[in-house]
Amino acid sequence: IGQQTDLGQALDNLRYNEDGLIPAIAQQHDTGEVLMMAWMNKASIEETLKTGQVCYWSRSRQTYWRKGESSGHVQKLVEMRIDCDGDTLLCLVNQNGPACHTERPNCFYHKVTGDKIEIITEPN
Amino acid sequence: IGQQTDLGQALDNLRYNEDGLIPAIAQQHDTGEVLMMAWMNKASIEETLKTGQVCYWSRSRQTYWRKGESSGHVQKLVEMRIDCDGDTLLCLVNQNGPACHTERPNCFYHKVTGDKIEIITEPN
Repeated sequence: IGQQTDLGQALDNLRYNEDGLIPAIAQQHDTGEVLMMAWMNKASIEETLKTGQVCYWSRSRQTYWRKGESSGHVQKLVEMRIDCDGDTLLCLVNQNGPACHTERPNCFYHKVTGDKIEIITEPN
Repeated sequence: IGQQTDLGQALDNLRYNEDGLIPAIAQQHDTGEVLMMAWMNKASIEETLKTGQVCYWSRSRQTYWRKGESSGHVQKLVEMRIDCDGDTLLCLVNQNGPACHTERPNCFYHKVTGDKIEIITEPN
């Protein structure tokens, strides 16, 4: 515990996929609610750490995805963690408003129930 | 809320990557602790749902990764959820023992602190 290594080196050594991306899980820091999962590249990780607001990389638009930039549903970064083998990030955040583009609190609203999928939350 | 669709169809329609894989987040069902992230293919999802024990797909070994098969650190599935755009799974589980292969409770034990990375948990 407490052992420290250099951040820049760690970011260089993350196991990005062939598109230079790494999955980032957003979790509400105080309730533990898993809000969403999206992708970051090195530049968006650096921007997230610099600004304190979560910035993903949009795979469809091939550009920065500053979460909440248009909706106002920003994610303030509370803490960033890296997993054991450096291929996944966990962002503890403070989510403003709904995290999901469907206006639901989080993106995981389809629940498997027997041989069905059931919707478990409504848009806010 | 409560709207149901067919599970088989939903599993067919998941947005697997070019290797037929989808990221699956494991979260401890009662504490909200995010334990790990790994990958599943359709067959491992079906096995997970059938057996009630989480089964990933090992990208390095290219075979089923029945979590805890050798270590005993199994993940009993409590609930499986699918996100809004069908490209990520959230598995609420009951983790037996440490989730991480380092014998830590979860895999996210590197914390970004300023320009350093700090280890925040020790092996159990």
